[in-house]
Amino acid sequence: MGSGRVQPRALRPGGRTTRVRAQVLQAAGDVLAEQGFTHLDLADVARRAGVGKTTVYRRWGTVAGLVADLLIDMAEQSLPRTETGILLDDLKANAQLVRRTLADARQGSLFKSIIAAAMCDARAASAMHGFYDTRIAEWVPCVQQAIERGEVPQGTDTHKVIRAVSAPLYYHLLVTGDSIDETMADQAAQAAVIAARAGVYMRPGHS
Amino acid sequence: MGSGRVQPRALRPGGRTTRVRAQVLQAAGDVLAEQGFTHLDLADVARRAGVGKTTVYRRWGTVAGLVADLLIDMAEQSLPRTETGILLDDLKANAQLVRRTLADARQGSLFKSIIAAAMCDARAASAMHGFYDTRIAEWVPCVQQAIERGEVPQGTDTHKVIRAVSAPLYYHLLVTGDSIDETMADQAAQAAVIAARAGVYMRPGHS
Repeated sequence: MGSGRVQPRALRPGGRTTRVRAQVLQAAGDVLAEQGFTHLDLADVARRAGVGKTTVYRRWGTVAGLVADLLIDMAEQSLPRTETGILLDDLKANAQLVRRTLADARQGSLFKSIIAAAMCDARAASAMHGFYDTRIAEWVPCVQQAIERGEVPQGTDTHKVIRAVSAPLYYHLLVTGDSIDETMADQAAQAAVIAARAGVYMRPGHS
Repeated sequence: MGSGRVQPRALRPGGRTTRVRAQVLQAAGDVLAEQGFTHLDLADVARRAGVGKTTVYRRWGTVAGLVADLLIDMAEQSLPRTETGILLDDLKANAQLVRRTLADARQGSLFKSIIAAAMCDARAASAMHGFYDTRIAEWVPCVQQAIERGEVPQGTDTHKVIRAVSAPLYYHLLVTGDSIDETMADQAAQAAVIAARAGVYMRPGHS
């Protein structure tokens, strides 16, 4: 992709094991962003990371195992939610965060490659679902607080509202190929709030 | 996938060329649905289709060329829109059609494989965008008629409304892995109509 290391991994304090993991996951992310899942190879990752091949094989075992660990690390390092006290503003912040991530050359390619990996490998799919569960759960309290403030109805499915914000952005990344701009991100947040207020995303048994 | 040929291709009237194309595209769709894009191989497709290898290489050239022609054929064979005179009912019909397609074992796998192909091949991506442009254009008149009836505001971006219906269904297929049920499809249509009525999907310059 030529964009280099857009977000260099900060080395966390810790011993050699922590450093090795950081180097290996950075290299794995680079390969995924630049070349895609089908080019991910443990020996190549070890060489790029400057780490012994045996260490990489022993610790991660397979490329799917490596992708799974990368997703755990991405979930741990990802940004916390924004809380403004107004649901629309919270969800706009969420939409703009997703937009910035997907519109970034390295990150957008990395996410596409991970989604492609999940299509052909069950372990990668399971790890990816775990990553998105973590990210959605991070933002769910914004909707819960909106219910408590009376902005959206009691019985609203909080997860569905957060998912409704991301859906159009991923649809454009993966299906239509349209560029994902700020207007589109704001519209995704607006549509989610208006539909939630109207009671579209009620949990079964509420109406 | 083991689901076999869910929708056997009807042979259209015509000569040997038409028959050969139908056989080759059926075989290509089978490989994509059962094994994915990385397993698509012209010689294997020729063998499955019972067609000479030279014919396949001469006519389609590359696997990306074959995927591109498959998408042209899929667009030609796809179902026309539903017109009920009520936008919500039209969009529910659209959402349920997309849901049935993506929830079908063969078709869902085929679409996933095509989207994966588009991630790693520019020609497949261009063909896929052409397919979705055709499908979205087919349903746009439903929104145009709703504008004329006064159901949604003048200046509504008709394409954005149709895309808003598909977005959550593809998001679940590709990203969350959640099953796509009838309730989710109806909610996608409801959310699109409510947001369109509220003016979320206005073209720039309208407000």
